[in-house]
Amino acid sequence: MKKIAVLPGDGIGPEVMAEAVKVLDAAQKKYGFELAYTWADVGGAGIDNQGKALPEPTVTTCEESDAILFGSVGGPKWEHLPPDEQPERGALLPLRKHFKLHCNLRPAKVFKTLVDACPLRPDIAKDGFDILCVRELTGGIYFGQPKGRHGEGGEETAFDTLVYSRFEIERIARNAFDAAMKRGKKVTSVDKANVLTSMVLWREVVTEVAKEYPEVTLDHIYVDNATMQLVKDPHQFDVLLCGNMFGDIISDECAMLTGSMGLLASASLNAEGFGLYEPAGGSAPDIAGQGVANPIAQILSATMMLRYSLNLGEAADAIEAAIAGVLEAGTHTADIAREASTVVGTAAMGDAIVAEL
Amino acid sequence: MKKIAVLPGDGIGPEVMAEAVKVLDAAQKKYGFELAYTWADVGGAGIDNQGKALPEPTVTTCEESDAILFGSVGGPKWEHLPPDEQPERGALLPLRKHFKLHCNLRPAKVFKTLVDACPLRPDIAKDGFDILCVRELTGGIYFGQPKGRHGEGGEETAFDTLVYSRFEIERIARNAFDAAMKRGKKVTSVDKANVLTSMVLWREVVTEVAKEYPEVTLDHIYVDNATMQLVKDPHQFDVLLCGNMFGDIISDECAMLTGSMGLLASASLNAEGFGLYEPAGGSAPDIAGQGVANPIAQILSATMMLRYSLNLGEAADAIEAAIAGVLEAGTHTADIAREASTVVGTAAMGDAIVAEL
Ligand SMILES: CC(C)[C@H](C(=O)O)[C@@H](O)C(=O)O
Ligand SMILES: CC(C)[C@H](C(=O)O)[C@@H](O)C(=O)O
Repeated sequence: MKKIAVLPGDGIGPEVMAEAVKVLDAAQKKYGFELAYTWADVGGAGIDNQGKALPEPTVTTCEESDAILFGSVGGPKWEHLPPDEQPERGALLPLRKHFKLHCNLRPAKVFKTLVDACPLRPDIAKDGFDILCVRELTGGIYFGQPKGRHGEGGEETAFDTLVYSRFEIERIARNAFDAAMKRGKKVTSVDKANVLTSMVLWREVVTEVAKEYPEVTLDHIYVDNATMQLVKDPHQFDVLLCGNMFGDIISDECAMLTGSMGLLASASLNAEGFGLYEPAGGSAPDIAGQGVANPIAQILSATMMLRYSLNLGEAADAIEAAIAGVLEAGTHTADIAREASTVVGTAAMGDAIVAEL
Repeated sequence: MKKIAVLPGDGIGPEVMAEAVKVLDAAQKKYGFELAYTWADVGGAGIDNQGKALPEPTVTTCEESDAILFGSVGGPKWEHLPPDEQPERGALLPLRKHFKLHCNLRPAKVFKTLVDACPLRPDIAKDGFDILCVRELTGGIYFGQPKGRHGEGGEETAFDTLVYSRFEIERIARNAFDAAMKRGKKVTSVDKANVLTSMVLWREVVTEVAKEYPEVTLDHIYVDNATMQLVKDPHQFDVLLCGNMFGDIISDECAMLTGSMGLLASASLNAEGFGLYEPAGGSAPDIAGQGVANPIAQILSATMMLRYSLNLGEAADAIEAAIAGVLEAGTHTADIAREASTVVGTAAMGDAIVAEL
């Protein structure tokens, strides 16, 4: 019996989470494993119900669980709050820090049947691409100290510190090389070693770690060039290894280049394999409550959870195959609908995936 | 009589610079102004001929000039050098710092006749887009102190400081709003105010400066979302205002999205209107010396120089119109060639523009 902390959050979060749980329930029956869910408030729901984006009881629930299944947080209702207290920053950054979730995995894959949704020209998109972004998530300029603000008038300054240690770089580099070993055996490390001292160390350490993986090819690319090459030819990449800030930027660019954000999941892992699993897209307040949101990213987040934290790879494979089957059959939510689609709502999509499973 | 420091640099730099000077010569005759050129070494040429990427005599030449026309620097020959001494970093960063070139203008415009070169799907590219990136160029994490490296073993750390003062932000924000007043009257400020303390100040100050420009619409966007929105719909942007690091990333993404890097120029200006003008693309060592490089970006850099530093807007307009005419007539270099093109080399492209002028 595994314990799952279920944090649906705001906007479309609760709707798509319901479908993920529906699919997990079906998988439990089929594959004979047992999950116990504890639901908890996070984000705007945390603020509204318990006064803060990450209430203490939610943290306790997560601590007592084997994994966190996260929906999405944020919306116009909470945008007037100071940045620190807003749903996104107030919930995600402390969760990452508290559970030491240093390794963020963001697959950006174009589904074969949805290649025409890719915003790139067909001769560039070809038959789709498949990139895994590996982003360092608990260091760099997000958490580096000191941060501050001082002075007055025109002289007033505000500052942040981008800092990386050899240990932090080694750890995330190994995550990237390990992932590459199971894929295309190619790592492209994104840095700005021509300008930043921290990135000179980054490049050095990544180059050293590469020696432990003689089968994997390592390239280095400057972050500015990376944003260009992704647009010019995304097929050249297999695993993209990035620090926290560059990973934030590059993984979102990759996601949008697939043309189907509603299908992208992510995992944020610590060194022990505990993790937080969440869709790559946002809380989409504009369509919340209408039953039209695409639940697939949330369901794929659940399959990443089965694979990485619960060692249930077989069930994960089966759910992913079911999703591919449903998409190939032309059953699509509105966000990925095309001419020949049968357009369905959130719950019907969940049902279709369960049926296919 | 205006003095121009001509720094051709490496790779295709000298070839395309020759064409820019050819076109400037023709414009002088037609519009009755006089330019005196002083050629000087920079980048790899500086290293090879005078021992460093930015030799002192080159700095003196620039100091004695009214503007700097810069080619491009770098190449495999100098890649083994320490980052500080390499052609790009060793020449560009000190030039920006020394001449206080705080304002980088990077137009990213799709030429009407070359819309099909845009890497985006035709229904997204539509009839092209026209974005101006305004990047702060002498502050932020590029130059912020302290920077350093200390400790040993796994504990060894390296760090950089991202710092902005109110004065720096006000200055570049005014540059962006002034530019927007002459264009679409819309500024989108790119930041990461949800995570970085420096960017909270950035957003505050930009919001204050906006009050001086009641006709201009101001939006704020997080940098991760900006990379996505550019791919999804570049038409939504007019002027993009960025700090140094984010501007490096975003302006390159914009450039590649036009599909014709060989046509993009840039200006780096100081508060007095002195500036350095350079193409957006690199030194392209792979095609250097073959007479096939596209000189248009270099020629457009020269027109920006006429407009911003020499107050010769009429001549600049005429050259730009000549370039548009040549492109419309189907005279193209190899990089922008399509089925019906008459493909020409570097010198023939310069001649065609002179003839059209
Ligand atoms: C909401 C924000 C703090 C967060 C980040 O910048 O890491 C988000 O963009 C993400 O990538 O998960
Ligand atoms: C070469 C490098 C130092 C430079 C920068 O990062 O500013 C370049 O990428 C640019 O944008 O001009």
